[in-house]
Amino acid sequence: MFEVFESGASLSKKDYKARLPELRAELLHTQFALQKAGVPVLIIVAGAEGAGKGEVVNRLNSWMDTRFMETSVFTKETDEEAARPFLWRFWRKMPAAGQIGVFFGSWYTRPITRHVFGELTPAEFDARMNRIRTLEQMLVDGGMVIVKCWLHISETEQRQRFEALEKDERTQWRVSDTDWRYHNNYATFLKVSSSAIRHTDTAPAPWHILDASQERYRDIAFMETLLHQLKLALHRNGNARSVPPPTSIELPEIARPNNILDRVDLSPVIGHEDFKRQYKELILEIEYLAWQCYQKSISSVFVFEGWDAAGKGGVIRRLIPALDAKLYRVIQISAPTSIEKAHHYLWRFWQDIPAGGRVTIYDRSWYGRVLVERVEGFATLDEWSRSYHEINEFEQQLIDHGTIVNKFWLHISDEEQLRRFENRQKTPYKQHKITEEDWRNREKRPAYMEAVHDMIARTSTEYAPWHIISAENKNHARIRVLTHIRDAMQDALQRSDTKSS
Amino acid sequence: MFEVFESGASLSKKDYKARLPELRAELLHTQFALQKAGVPVLIIVAGAEGAGKGEVVNRLNSWMDTRFMETSVFTKETDEEAARPFLWRFWRKMPAAGQIGVFFGSWYTRPITRHVFGELTPAEFDARMNRIRTLEQMLVDGGMVIVKCWLHISETEQRQRFEALEKDERTQWRVSDTDWRYHNNYATFLKVSSSAIRHTDTAPAPWHILDASQERYRDIAFMETLLHQLKLALHRNGNARSVPPPTSIELPEIARPNNILDRVDLSPVIGHEDFKRQYKELILEIEYLAWQCYQKSISSVFVFEGWDAAGKGGVIRRLIPALDAKLYRVIQISAPTSIEKAHHYLWRFWQDIPAGGRVTIYDRSWYGRVLVERVEGFATLDEWSRSYHEINEFEQQLIDHGTIVNKFWLHISDEEQLRRFENRQKTPYKQHKITEEDWRNREKRPAYMEAVHDMIARTSTEYAPWHIISAENKNHARIRVLTHIRDAMQDALQRSDTKSS
Repeated sequence: MFEVFESGASLSKKDYKARLPELRAELLHTQFALQKAGVPVLIIVAGAEGAGKGEVVNRLNSWMDTRFMETSVFTKETDEEAARPFLWRFWRKMPAAGQIGVFFGSWYTRPITRHVFGELTPAEFDARMNRIRTLEQMLVDGGMVIVKCWLHISETEQRQRFEALEKDERTQWRVSDTDWRYHNNYATFLKVSSSAIRHTDTAPAPWHILDASQERYRDIAFMETLLHQLKLALHRNGNARSVPPPTSIELPEIARPNNILDRVDLSPVIGHEDFKRQYKELILEIEYLAWQCYQKSISSVFVFEGWDAAGKGGVIRRLIPALDAKLYRVIQISAPTSIEKAHHYLWRFWQDIPAGGRVTIYDRSWYGRVLVERVEGFATLDEWSRSYHEINEFEQQLIDHGTIVNKFWLHISDEEQLRRFENRQKTPYKQHKITEEDWRNREKRPAYMEAVHDMIARTSTEYAPWHIISAENKNHARIRVLTHIRDAMQDALQRSDTKSS
Repeated sequence: MFEVFESGASLSKKDYKARLPELRAELLHTQFALQKAGVPVLIIVAGAEGAGKGEVVNRLNSWMDTRFMETSVFTKETDEEAARPFLWRFWRKMPAAGQIGVFFGSWYTRPITRHVFGELTPAEFDARMNRIRTLEQMLVDGGMVIVKCWLHISETEQRQRFEALEKDERTQWRVSDTDWRYHNNYATFLKVSSSAIRHTDTAPAPWHILDASQERYRDIAFMETLLHQLKLALHRNGNARSVPPPTSIELPEIARPNNILDRVDLSPVIGHEDFKRQYKELILEIEYLAWQCYQKSISSVFVFEGWDAAGKGGVIRRLIPALDAKLYRVIQISAPTSIEKAHHYLWRFWQDIPAGGRVTIYDRSWYGRVLVERVEGFATLDEWSRSYHEINEFEQQLIDHGTIVNKFWLHISDEEQLRRFENRQKTPYKQHKITEEDWRNREKRPAYMEAVHDMIARTSTEYAPWHIISAENKNHARIRVLTHIRDAMQDALQRSDTKSS
């Protein structure tokens, strides 16, 4: 989930300076509105070491009215604190009505660190996360607004920052042995942190992950996110008198991360001969692996989403020859029937989940909830926001049951899509594949871009990853998808071997 | 929590027959209203073997319009079901909009049974319960109404029922070896079931425990509870057109369990000499145990609630001599200050929780939320209903941390309270102890009775039990409280010895 935020989002000095005065004024204004309305606000600043949490908190303190704001720094527990339930020290610092509490280091820090260093078992870690989820729900039920921001930097960025600080005699002291110890466990931290976020990315208290690789962007993105969340909260509670509502449900342009789809390299091409050779090889491999998975009762779920005409059908048709007809099903998802509409949106997807080492291929899926339903307004903001957590929970149950879950987004450029649409319209036997709706959807590409980015950011997990596939070249898309499927099956078989041995 | 429902609530044939026609008509009427409004309803019928779950489901089917109702019986998992995540088979039977789904055997059954027989570890069991809580929250968020009823019978009642069935040749077949195996593990079932209920007794999907010892009462109580919940749900969703709102937040009189306070034997008296002897002994024991607890860092929380003039202060004053002044604090809770009001209601109680083997004594407590705040309307129905779960969660954190939690309700009769009030008014040095408010509270005794009953039913747990103390005789109350405290400390020390050895 974090890779999405390693886009190197940056902001020019000019843009930064242009936005600063107004943003600052708006934040202060919103703070007063919240203070007047007696709403308690809790801001949790979390993230990687060296990502600039301290700087962000300092900036916040210089911008806001500190008469109504208190920053609490939670580092190592004191003896007094260690002697009580782990939430005690946080309860003591909870913001009162009309106050803003800034938590620098929070109830997330210790469980994550202790799990990374093996002091908490996975079950204990999960229990902590459940406790936190219950706590946050309870606080929000009690009227609190919780804004949780996670500042992310890449492993390389972290190393470079530590090295730069160490080089300068005046800043050497800022890098401790602990920092390096954390850095050396960067990958584990990432894994545990993303698990923590997935557990607690709920509708009442969602997470906001920020690319913290450039200072200017980091600070503006943080402040814009904060402002946006506070405005939304004011309007949800019906408490806003003097504060205008946010103009959109998305963050303002300036604070948005670079869209992950903009970074997809669409150039790779696989020629006909290469394709034939690689394809034959992959099919044989998958055939064998699928058979082994069947023997070991490791089921698979493969989800295909992507732009219209990106070639989902073609990829699926190339996958099927590798699978025994008795072992797989392809489920085509289109607009829900009246019976499906009468149920919870996840209901119809539960019906066909595979068992006994079989494979279910979804041609479109439950992700419609956060794509078409979001963009077309079929689901309300509250409904689709809530869905990320519900979907993660759904997939987690499949994973816990030993099922392979892999998700593919087939990406093509706007121009390529246009070419394919026009081609379909010109070719008699392809005309049925193109409708008015497809043309209408094309106009909504920017909204879909946002939705896809958020979807991948919030539902790509270690065990249920999203693979973004460059589908500009069909051969390339097919080979990439099959390669991921082969790898996923190989990994799952290996894990099951390790477990049983 | 279950003892509260072993009151032998019963209903005369006459009362039963008098209520039947109207209740049935109202239920049917409400069903149509829900059907029209397109609300899906899920009824979970759970409880002990032999409590009559099947009979209740049959009755339901004969009363309601079965065109819009489907009963699903979940017994042993089929191979197909076992091959998928454990919630799969329930998802397949979820009621659609406008439909009622009756689950006989539900997602609670298997986790409880498997935990009883050691097939699930405590951590696995907790994880299941968290998953269920998330599921129910999600379904309710999606518009579903969930009514969960637990039919309870005592161990003796269960044995007698099985024996009666076995005696008759025509019903012999109804008692299986499994039934007896369950019966032999009755105590464990009770423990695990109460843990399941505590975990999942949430605001969106609360539990209703029913005394199922008499058929007539069981059926009427079940139907009244159902009707009441459906009506509440209709009105909460703003969907009720033709259905009148429930006349009160409490169940109608006829379905209410016998109040647990009505069963308290107020006759025991301890004479002066006996008291002196026992008191001296107990103080010495507690002194020694408290010292040991201090050495082992086992802290204690003792909560005192009770009627005005029941003698809370007197009991606390008799406990204190057993404790070293450095080791305890007495916290007097009265109406919240403005600072306390600006915080979550639990905030002020978190401040003083003990650590390092010390003792905190609360003279009134967080239970004010579900007592005075409920009765006086200071908290809304949603707020105080939610609080049972929040309070259980709070105490669970203390318990997980190794803290002893015991709660005392000091009970006196209405007449005895009047005597004490009058005595206070007559005695000059006691006059300050009686106020106008005390007299006003007396008039609300029936509402408090309901609130106390619910509180004890929903927050008395194995590790944080409520002790209902007969305080009609002061000596008796004092000895009983000290005895419970001695036992609790002894148990905790024993558990810590077992753990460390």
